[in-house]
Order: sequence, then structure tokens, then C-alpha cells
Amino acid sequence: MTTDPEDILHWLPTSEFQRVLDGIDDRHDRLRAFSALSRVNTLYMIMKAGSGHIGSSFSAADLVSWLLLEELDEDEVFFSSKGHDVPGLYAALIGLGRLDEDLLHRLRRLGGLPGHPDVRTPHMPFNTGSLGMGLSKAKGLILANRLLGREQRVYVLTGDGELQEGQNWEALGGAVNAAMGELTVIVDHNRIQSDTWVRDVSDLGDLEARFAGFGWAVLRCDGHDFAAIEAVFRRRAEEFAGRPAVVIADTVKGAGCAVFAATSMAPGEWRYRFHSGAPEPEVYERAHGELWRAAESIVGGGGLAGLEPRTATGRPPAKATGPSLPKVYGRALADAAERDERIVALDADLVLDTGLIPFSQRVPDRFIECGIAEQDMVSMAAGLAARGLLPFVHSFSCFLHARPNEHIYNNATEGRKVVYVGSLAGLLPAGPGHSHQAVRDVAAVGSVPGLVVLEPAGPRQARAAVDYCVDTPDSVYLRLVSVPVPPEVAAVDAAEAPTLETGRGTVVRPGGRTVAIGAGPVVLAELLRAAETADLTVVNLPWLNRVDPHWLAELAASADRIVVVENHYTHGGQADLIARALLELDLPTPPRFRGIGLTEVPRCGTADEVLDAHGLSAGRLTAALAEGENRWTTPSTTS
Amino acid sequence: MTTDPEDILHWLPTSEFQRVLDGIDDRHDRLRAFSALSRVNTLYMIMKAGSGHIGSSFSAADLVSWLLLEELDEDEVFFSSKGHDVPGLYAALIGLGRLDEDLLHRLRRLGGLPGHPDVRTPHMPFNTGSLGMGLSKAKGLILANRLLGREQRVYVLTGDGELQEGQNWEALGGAVNAAMGELTVIVDHNRIQSDTWVRDVSDLGDLEARFAGFGWAVLRCDGHDFAAIEAVFRRRAEEFAGRPAVVIADTVKGAGCAVFAATSMAPGEWRYRFHSGAPEPEVYERAHGELWRAAESIVGGGGLAGLEPRTATGRPPAKATGPSLPKVYGRALADAAERDERIVALDADLVLDTGLIPFSQRVPDRFIECGIAEQDMVSMAAGLAARGLLPFVHSFSCFLHARPNEHIYNNATEGRKVVYVGSLAGLLPAGPGHSHQAVRDVAAVGSVPGLVVLEPAGPRQARAAVDYCVDTPDSVYLRLVSVPVPPEVAAVDAAEAPTLETGRGTVVRPGGRTVAIGAGPVVLAELLRAAETADLTVVNLPWLNRVDPHWLAELAASADRIVVVENHYTHGGQADLIARALLELDLPTPPRFRGIGLTEVPRCGTADEVLDAHGLSAGRLTAALAEGENRWTTPSTTS
Repeated sequence: MTTDPEDILHWLPTSEFQRVLDGIDDRHDRLRAFSALSRVNTLYMIMKAGSGHIGSSFSAADLVSWLLLEELDEDEVFFSSKGHDVPGLYAALIGLGRLDEDLLHRLRRLGGLPGHPDVRTPHMPFNTGSLGMGLSKAKGLILANRLLGREQRVYVLTGDGELQEGQNWEALGGAVNAAMGELTVIVDHNRIQSDTWVRDVSDLGDLEARFAGFGWAVLRCDGHDFAAIEAVFRRRAEEFAGRPAVVIADTVKGAGCAVFAATSMAPGEWRYRFHSGAPEPEVYERAHGELWRAAESIVGGGGLAGLEPRTATGRPPAKATGPSLPKVYGRALADAAERDERIVALDADLVLDTGLIPFSQRVPDRFIECGIAEQDMVSMAAGLAARGLLPFVHSFSCFLHARPNEHIYNNATEGRKVVYVGSLAGLLPAGPGHSHQAVRDVAAVGSVPGLVVLEPAGPRQARAAVDYCVDTPDSVYLRLVSVPVPPEVAAVDAAEAPTLETGRGTVVRPGGRTVAIGAGPVVLAELLRAAETADLTVVNLPWLNRVDPHWLAELAASADRIVVVENHYTHGGQADLIARALLELDLPTPPRFRGIGLTEVPRCGTADEVLDAHGLSAGRLTAALAEGENRWTTPSTTS
Repeated sequence: MTTDPEDILHWLPTSEFQRVLDGIDDRHDRLRAFSALSRVNTLYMIMKAGSGHIGSSFSAADLVSWLLLEELDEDEVFFSSKGHDVPGLYAALIGLGRLDEDLLHRLRRLGGLPGHPDVRTPHMPFNTGSLGMGLSKAKGLILANRLLGREQRVYVLTGDGELQEGQNWEALGGAVNAAMGELTVIVDHNRIQSDTWVRDVSDLGDLEARFAGFGWAVLRCDGHDFAAIEAVFRRRAEEFAGRPAVVIADTVKGAGCAVFAATSMAPGEWRYRFHSGAPEPEVYERAHGELWRAAESIVGGGGLAGLEPRTATGRPPAKATGPSLPKVYGRALADAAERDERIVALDADLVLDTGLIPFSQRVPDRFIECGIAEQDMVSMAAGLAARGLLPFVHSFSCFLHARPNEHIYNNATEGRKVVYVGSLAGLLPAGPGHSHQAVRDVAAVGSVPGLVVLEPAGPRQARAAVDYCVDTPDSVYLRLVSVPVPPEVAAVDAAEAPTLETGRGTVVRPGGRTVAIGAGPVVLAELLRAAETADLTVVNLPWLNRVDPHWLAELAASADRIVVVENHYTHGGQADLIARALLELDLPTPPRFRGIGLTEVPRCGTADEVLDAHGLSAGRLTAALAEGENRWTTPSTTS
């Protein structure tokens, strides 16, 4: 088999980093060389993985090099609160030999390096990726150190977009009151958040004045100029030893490579294209070429022999194709908004991923960009609803169900209608890791009174869901899977009724008296695949906290066994709902019952790897169903 | 029956307010008189209710008078974000005839005036009491107004302690970016949060600099001097018309009455005693006398005839007595901490109500006061756990399960142990209203992997729960009811085993083959009372998201019917857990099953009123159980 030249990727072994570190005397040249090599490997890792955050890995790369090579003693702590710049940190740690070189090839793979930091990886003190928690975690660490009589400096990197999260500001006061001279916050001030400019999303105003207003020492430097970086950290230590300090490092998203640098954006181009995801092969070629020449030039300038690249075939895990529910949803919402002037859309800095670009263009006056400020957004929705408008509130489901959890309930107690739309719901994509895998959203909002939780399986049902959300008097939490709808599910979805009836599902594959219930494209695809070898009746029940007992009674009459499979923890979701309802039907002989879903913290990896690891792949489901009577009758610990 | 003179309370009818408003020409004198009369009625309402927030009602009273009488046009909006000053607002609105006079006597009663604002009461635009949401709600209202082409000024009152919540700071930037000149925030800067001085809990530093750093116009005045108040609002309108502005009003908690005024606190006295709760009768006498004399003096000075008081018997609803679980818990935790140096306690400004005063005194170096900053607190716990300490994190359960919901999950993904302790759990006390009634906490955290949710019924079990929390490798969410443990429950609790076994319950009252399962003192008391007339077996199962299937199988063998009663929504809690587990036991003939719990937003009122209204009183439970076969077999809508 010949390898397509497009698939050849280049990386540098740890030995090359060591040679460069040992061979270049000038400190700033050594740092520049280390950053250049790190960027080569960061790009390699992301290409190999097929996804990852280039822009912020590159903007933070020089700061990370400084911290690891010059600033930190071995015992001192550094971590990134935003966390999505972690490919760059991994590359640097591998370059220093602190992580196994082999992990270079295993970004976002099961057992490899997670898409956001996880404490099971060496040198990762905390799980981050849920934004805005880093300062607080650092403060806890410092308080622990003080109790334990340990002196230790702690450095936290944050994004600038991340500073829109209120928790950062909640955390600042305590650090001043406790005179936490141990704590330094570095703002990777690259001026772009996920899609576009911070100033256009939710401007931070005078950032220095904000921090100073809270009593912090404020310093500022060019985050790509090692002389400036060195000077600012010296000042921090010498002039502000007893106080918490912030270093605002002015950086460029994608720095170090003109292909990715935000400074290369065309005039008027609003969207930065390299926040997440791997570039196309030809973009990789250009970028790698540029990075390589830069690295060679620095290394050569230091008097060393040329770099010796290693190559690997780089074809990333195959990308699934199929309709995108957020896209379908977003168009349907824009259609609805053109008909219904009450509809307002609120977004938390995910206009692309929540499918809202058409809405923002077609109904711009009713599109409200809130920034990374989910609590503010959800409480603002209360204000809009109070005036009779119909707010649709958007974020990734991992954030939307949890960060403003009290706010969703508070809105519900007002009895006004709000629609919450959480995309990226469920276990997949599994590359970003557990901070982004929303697998407890149904449990966390399912008991909110008057709130219906609904998960459409395909495009037709997603459009019906928008109509439902507009027409129902209830508030709704719409759970949208973002990975493409598999063809099996798209096919059955096309036959779904154009309107939704609360609490009622559809038999999407008639079969035997083992009835498998599920919601959403991920579960239904695996069940339909399992049904190819097992004699299953497959039911699409898009309602996650409502079931019509009459419908369920009919279904139960046709079943010897009912299994509910969930793209969610097997607690607090659809399995509990169905079990409770079945028992309350008071049937003389209820069908045997089993629920299958997550029981552990979700793993990071490819879709196939992770579904299989958690027992949710068609193969694992088939095996579970075939285990027979024993498995169905032996009590197991219920949790 | 003669009335104890101690029970006589005094109030003023709306007609007296009108006479004063009509009869006093000088604007500031009229305002002073209105405030004085409002304070008389505020105290009356709180005495009559037996609870309520005097301190902040009084500190805000003059600001409220200014806003209602002078500042606001009828169409303009004012609301309190902190919300617990609402008795003062009710008194003012009743004085103005905007609320029915009869409601004076119905504070915190079913169908009366809720302990925190609710939109079902006229002139309450939002449900508040969950702190820090007000600015965001106001912003949403303003955005709606702009879409609807409506010009309207919006005034939001916040506490100063409330400003510790990060959401306030999350909300500020958007108001500046949208140039919300319509928005004025008034900080009732009384310098005391629930128990003590803001500066000692979590100092706000230079508050003016904080707001100014975010780009807000900042003004300041004496919040009890009407000339100063008038001047500051004139400046706000004239000099800063196009910008959001904050008025920091320096006030005194309990102002207008030396008995309650924080300025009367003795040197060294750390705790302010009139934040919440009704004063003792003799304190009422003194305070009322003082308020009355002040009112008479202002009214008389205005040339009017003396005030004509009305009287009412004021015996408030009888207070329950019995052991306090937070108190028992707090002592047990302090004991444990003296033995185990890993234990650290974190508190969010509720040191009294979470039972932590003994801990803070006996183990002061391991007591961390975080202020009203639940997200910061929970993420700090991650930092403490990372160093091998064992953090116990405290707040009211209504806040603890919800505000830092994402943070609890994030901590769980790190696999380190944290104990969360939510007091004030469940429906009671029902006086504060739904913002404080934690009835979805089990659902909202029950699916967090590795987190056990546990609710002890009595003092013995609470002490055992502390031991369990210390010894188990799991993280724990300890759900503590704060109302006194009723004697029936204290009696059965005394016979409980001294150690807890995960997932297993105890028959606390043997009886017939209808088995009622519940957790915590409120449910168990009602069940034990119901068992006096119904042939019930009552089971205490303190585990809310774990059940041992072997234990359950044994219990099921002794039952024809199982009913689970919950101090929680009947979704996502113990009823779902037991139903699912029962069905998965795959019994040939499972017992019939029914769950009873909340289905609506919890009501405000006395304990008896509210338990009955929600069907959880012994009487209602007995009736439900007696409804016979029909009720047990007819499918009802499950939600």
C-alpha cells in the first residue's frame, strides 16, 4: 500500500528538543527555538488527531516556553484554566521529556492525551476546559499549601474571552484579602474567543482597570517577546511579592505561523478559522513548511545542524458525514423567527456550533450575543420573557444545564416560558473530553417544573421540535447531538410524523418482543445496527422526562423485555423515567427491564473507541442483550 | 380568652399613610414620615409572620421611599435583587394602596406575601432571593423594551454582600457595551451580610473602583439622607444619562431603630442579630415604642394629629422544637476535625445556619469563609483536595446543588474526594419561599459519578453521616433538613445503628404489607403520624441515589405495596431510584408502587399549610393511601 503524500505528517522527537536546548547558549534564542519546535509538534498532534485547538495553543506557546524553561522550579505549579491550549502544553512537556514521546501520536485517543486537561495525565494538576474555574482552584491549592506549611508559587493561564465568566471576578477578591503573593494569573490576551473578536462578542473594556479595581497588581507585556516576558515576571516578583498579580500578555491567536495568525485575517473577515479542528491537508502543508523553515532558521542561527524530522502517516480518524442537527435547527429557528416576532435568540459565544449564524444574519435585531456568560444569559432571558418575548437560549449542553442551573430553575418559578437549546449533547464527539461531554444534563434539569426535555433524532424531528418549542405553553430544554446524523437514523427520521406528541414515541424498526427504547441519533444508530443481528424492536422516544402512560402501556403489551439505552448517565434520565412509569402502570406481569447508559466519567477518544469503551456500541449492546436470563434477573448494585 | 399583653402588635392602616402623605408639605419630611410608618408596619409583619428580614428591610427603607414616592413614574420598574428586604417593600406598597391592606397580616402565609419576591404578587417583576440575578434580569427587560420600542428606566437594588456573587460582575460588561442608560443599580451598602460584617467575610475592597473598572458611572450618597439621595439621583440623570450607573448608598443595617441598628452593636460583638427572624416580644416592645415615637414626632412636626394605631394579636405560628441537624452536624464535624487534620470546612456566608460556629471556633485555621461565592468555594475545594485535604463545603442546599452545579461535576471528574453539605434542605421552612426551598437537589446532583447523596433523619444518624463522610472513599452530598427534628423521629432515630451501610434502610415502624419509604425528619414524621391510623410499615432509607438490591429484595418480599414519599420533586429522586431498582430485581410479581412528592413550585407558608398544600401532610398521605385500588392501578400522566 502506498501512502498518499497528503497523509505524510512531520514531527520532532524529544531528542531533537534536547539537542536544541543543550546546543543554544543564548537564553532568548533557546526559548524561541523551543517554541518553534513545540509549534511543529502541536500542529502534528492536532493533524494526527483530526481536531484540537491550534489558535490558542500557538498564542500561548511562547508564554508556556518561558514558564517551563525559565520561570518555574520543578516544584511549582502551572496550569491552564481555559485548557483548550493543552496541545501546545503537551508538545512542550513531551519536548522536555516530561511526558512520553509516544503520546505525541495519541492526542484525543482512548488512553492517550485528552482534548482538555485531565489529572490522570502527569503534570496536569486540575481538570479544566470548563471555563473560569482556574483561579479558584489555584486559590484552594494555595490555602492547602499554607495549611501544610508549604511555600509554592502557582501560575494560572486564562483566556481573555474566558474572563467574561463571572467566576473569575468572584474569585479575585479572596486572593487579595488573603494576600496571595503566591498567585500569578497570566491572561493570554489574543483578543479572539472561539469564533471572533472579543470586542465584538462582549468587550472587556479596560481590562487593566478591571483587575486593578479588585486590588490586583496589574502588569502587561508582549506575550511573544521573551525580553519583555522576562522583564515582566521579574517586575512581578520584585515589586509585588506579597500580592496576587495578573500579567496581561498581548498575544496573537495562531502566532508563530502566518497561515494561522489572526493578523493574517483579511479585512472584514469576521470569523477566525483555526480556533478548533484540524486544517485541510494543503493548509497543513503550507503551515508546516512555514513552521519548519522558522525552526530551522532559529536552530541554524544557533550554530546547530539541521533538524531531523520524523514522519508518520497522518490520516486522522475518518470523519462521519450526515446532517447536522444544530444546522437544521438553526435554519428552522430563523424560519420561525421570521414568522413570529416574539422569538429572540441568545448565544454564549458559540454562534457557529449552535447553528445560529443564519439567525444572526436573517434576524439580527433579535440575536443577542452574550459572550461566555451563561448565568447572565439565562437570567436575561427572564427579562425578555417578562415582556412577552420568547427567548431561545443557546450554549453547549455541558455548560447550559450546569453553569446556570439555579437560573433555569429560578426562571421556571416565574412561570414564564424560556427555551434552552444545548448542542454538543451526549458522549460524542468524545475528542474534547469530559468537560464538553454532556451526559448528566437530563438529570440536572429534568426535575425543573414545567420544563420538558426533548432530544430529536434527525432533521425532520429537529424541525418538528422547533415547532413544538414555539407552540407549547411549557418551557423546553432541547438537547441537540452535534455529530452528524448517521444514515440509518436519517432514514427512519424521514418517516417520522411532522409533529411531536408529548410523551409518545415511534417504533422505528419493528421486530421481536425485546423492545429497545432510545432517543437521539447516537443511541438509535447503535440500536438499529444491533437490530441487524438481534431480533429487536427499536423505539425512538425523544422525550426524556415525560412519558405518556397510555402509549407506554400499549408498548409494554408488545414486549417481554424493555431495554432503555441512554447517551447519558444511567441515573436520572430516560431509563429511570420508563422504569418508574412501567411500575406505576401496575401491570400484572410487567416486562423485564434494563437500562444501559454511562456509569463512569466519559472517556476521551474517537467515537468508535469511546462508544465501545462505555458499552454503548452496537457490538457491546448486542452482547449485553444476548447475555440472557442471568443478566436480566440477577440484582446488581443500583446506583 | 384573654390576650396576653405580650401578644398585642400594632400596625397602621393604609388610610394613615394617605393622611400623612396628603398632610405633610415638605418633601423630605413627607419621605421621612413615610419611611417611619413603613418601618412600623414592616416590624409588625415580621412579628406576625414569626420570621422575616428586619435588618435589610430597614437599611433599604429610605431608598425605597424615595424611589416609590419621588423617583419612579408609574410605568418604571424597580425591584430588589437580594429580595430579602421585601417586607419593607410590601409595607411601602401597602402604605401606598398598591397592595391590599389585608396582606399586612399574611406575610409568609399560604396565599399571602411570600418571604422573597414572587411575580404572582403585584408589582414584583421578578422572582428574586437567589442572589446576584437582578442585574441580568434588568438587562433582559431593557433589551426587550428596546425591541418593543419602549423607553423605560429600570432600577435594581442589590445588597453589598450580594456583590460577592460573580454573576453581578459577569453582568456589568454587557450593560456598558449596550450603553444601558436606562439601568441604575443601587447598592444598599449596609456593610453587613447575613451574620456579620462584609469586610470580615469577604471584603469588597474599593467598591467604587471595582464598578468604575467595568466602565460604570459610579455615584455615592448617604442612603438615609433624603437631600443626599435626591442630589445623587439628579446627578445620575443629568450627568450620566447614556450610561449604566451605580449608586452606592451608605446605609446602616436596621436603620431607623436603635434596637436593630448595627450602629448599636457592642464593641467586639461579631454577630448582627436581626438579619432574619422575628425578635423576642420584649425586643419588639422596645423597638415598636421607639419606631412609634419617631413616627409620631415626624407626623406631629408636620402639624398633623397623632397616628391611630390598630392592634392585632400577634402570636406567630407556633415554633417547632427539637434537635437541629445542622447544629448536631456542626459539632460532630468539629469533633472529627480535631481527630483528623485533613478536614477543612468551607462556608458561603452561612456560618450560623450551617452549624459551623463550633468548627470556626475550635478549628479556626481550617475554617475558610468564602462569602456568597459558591462557585469559587466549590472550585477552591478542588485545590484543597488536590493536596490531600478533605474539604467539607457548606451552604444552603438550594444554592449548593445549583449555583456550582458544573463545579461539583468538574470536581467529580478529578476523582478527588469532596463533601458537600447543604442545609435548609427540602420544603421546610416554607416561609422564605421557593428560592430557599431545596426540592430538586437530589435530581440535580444525584447522577454525578462517585457522589453519594445522603439525608440523615435525626441526630444519631447525622453523627453517623459525618463518620461516613470521613471514612468513605466516595464524595458525598449531605442533605440536611434544618427545621427541628420532630419527637417521633428523634425517638426512632435514637434506635438507629451507629454506622451507616450504603444503600440500606431501617424499618422504623413495623406494620402491614404497605411499606412506606422515606428519608429525613420531615417525611418520616408525617409517615409515622400517618401510620397511627393506617397499617403502614415505615422505612427510613437515608440514601437518595443508592439502594442495595439485596436489601430491597428482602423488603419487597414483605410488601404488597411500596410507596416512596419525598421531600423533593417526585422526579429524579428516591422514588425513581426505588422504582427502577424494584423493576430490575425482575420479581415475578413486584409490589405495586407509587411515589409521592412535589409536582409544583413549592408554596410559601407555615409548615402545616405547605405540607398540606403539597399533599405531604400525614392527613393527605393517609387519604392518598386509602384511595384504594383505583389510585394504585390507573395510569396517570407521568412527569
